[in-house]
This record gives sequence, structure tokens and C-alpha cells, in this order.
Amino acid sequence: MQRLAVDMDGVLADVYEQFFRYDEKDFGKRRPLEDVVGVEERKAFPYINEYVYTEGFFRTAPILKDSVGILAALNEVYELFIVSAAMEFPQSLPEKLEWLNEHFKFISWQQIVFCGNKTIIDADIMIDDHFKNLDQFKGITILFSQPHNQLKNSGRHKRAESWEQVASLLL
Amino acid sequence: MQRLAVDMDGVLADVYEQFFRYDEKDFGKRRPLEDVVGVEERKAFPYINEYVYTEGFFRTAPILKDSVGILAALNEVYELFIVSAAMEFPQSLPEKLEWLNEHFKFISWQQIVFCGNKTIIDADIMIDDHFKNLDQFKGITILFSQPHNQLKNSGRHKRAESWEQVASLLL
Repeated sequence: MQRLAVDMDGVLADVYEQFFRYDEKDFGKRRPLEDVVGVEERKAFPYINEYVYTEGFFRTAPILKDSVGILAALNEVYELFIVSAAMEFPQSLPEKLEWLNEHFKFISWQQIVFCGNKTIIDADIMIDDHFKNLDQFKGITILFSQPHNQLKNSGRHKRAESWEQVASLLL
Repeated sequence: MQRLAVDMDGVLADVYEQFFRYDEKDFGKRRPLEDVVGVEERKAFPYINEYVYTEGFFRTAPILKDSVGILAALNEVYELFIVSAAMEFPQSLPEKLEWLNEHFKFISWQQIVFCGNKTIIDADIMIDDHFKNLDQFKGITILFSQPHNQLKNSGRHKRAESWEQVASLLL
């Protein structure tokens, strides 16, 4: 069975929707998507460093479309791990665990990894939205499309625009 | 630089001392060490499942002798990661982070991994007190002596009785 490492933020959790909501509260109107396409997250949202330290930010993130059903199917045919670089935001750890337990009930605690740096992850396939995690990974890599990576060439990584595309690559 | 994965409980944190203290509170006298040598932790301390879910259990654990200085030295010559199978006890996550930040200030958040199952860890050397983690590890393995593993043959794993012995193996 191949081991599959799946990122949380920007792959399972729709953190962009959270950024848009929090940004709208600060600036009074919702920012159009085209404003943030091709822009680093930290540059796209001026107060992002406050948002990610706000209680509830990770706990209340929406789920990315189709991720629950397709991940459940992947869980049957891969040795699945959820790998989140959560250590940068210590207050997010219990929120992320609760979020997974609520929305992805088929994921056991044995399948969850919170780390700071993904170089230590030994798996066959990695799905992530950040080049810094995929570039250093030795196995098969899938770049999950998010505004910040949208205009870049995916290079050696396969690009998935949606969970349906992940399914067609891996199922 | 070789990558070194170091366990927390029973390797950096003296969880046995915590078990003895909590057990003494319950039974009125301190259990002699020989009572628990060669006995699984869960069998040695009748109420262990309450202890590990008690607020403060991990936060107030003593540090194992010599671990701070020797780990600081190892941190200079290895790519060091602290790897704790903490996901079984979700409430322990922030406690373990705070504990590391207090006692091992030279460890950055990038070097910390909390997981459920250590099969996903890619490193060259692993120090752990549990056979279940070492047996499945492909690299060099060091079994850190604790009462529960004391009477067992260490098999292919090198045994270290103390941090001084770890130093003489790795420095």
C-alpha cells in the first residue's frame, strides 16, 4: 500500500475563504479573487498574521469542496496521513485536531502529523499547495491549486485544480 | 548532516517520575522501582490512563538527567528533530510544546513533530524507549532504558542507560 501525505490548510481546509471573511470584516467589503491570484498569502492579506493567531480561525474554516468523500475513498486504498505544518501556530493544534475529528471522522489519531518542516516526512505521494513542501519531497507530488500558486509553473509537480482532479490522478 | 529523531516521553521527559508521584498520591506511599521493572507502563500503574489525561501531567514532568546539555551538543552536529507520539493525548499537545520551549530553548518549532505513528518519520537515527517505534525504523536505533524495557533483550537496537551513554554513542 502506498503512503499518501495530505496537507490540511489550502488542501482540506479552505483557509482562503477564512482570509476573505476576516479581511472583509477589517475593510468593509469582500476582496475580489483576482486581487490575490498569484500573490503570496502573507502579501495578499495585510492582517494575515493576526488572523492565523485568532482563536477559532482554524476551528471554523470551511471544508474544501469534495474533499471529504474523495479522502474517504483514498483512505481505503492508500496508507493515508494528514500532515500539517501546524507547529508555527501552537494555538492551532487543538483546533486542527477538533476540526479533523468533526469533518473527517474516518481519520484516526494514528494518521495525523503536526510538524514544522515536512522534510522529515517519509511517504510515496504528497498533496500540498506550497512549493516549499513539494520541492524537497522525493516521491510523487501533487500541487493543489490555490490563488497563491496559481500563476506559477507547477514544474515537476502535477497540478490538481480540485479534489475531483485529485481523484482522477489517484483513484 | 545526519538526521536524528529524539522521542520525548521516557527520553527527555521523566514520565516515570510523574507516574510514581501520581501513584503515591493515590496509594499513600511511593512504589519501589523494582515493582515496575520489566512491567508494561499500563500494567505497572493501575490509574495511568487517568494520569496521562490529567491537566499538567506532561507540563510538569521533570527533565531526564543530562538531557539538556547533551541534546544541545547533538543539535550542533545533527539535523535534530523531536518526535513525540502525542496525538493519542490531544490535551498534551500545548503542554508538550510549552515544556520544550521552557527546558530546551534551542529547539525551534521547525524541529518539532507530533504524530500518532512513527512509521512516517524519515531520519537516520532514532532514540526511543519503545520497541514498537524502533522495530519499524530503518535507520540506526538507540533504545533508551526505562523500567518497562529494562529486562528485555535490546535486539538490533543499541541500548543507552543514560544520556551520557547517548553522548558516547553519538558525539
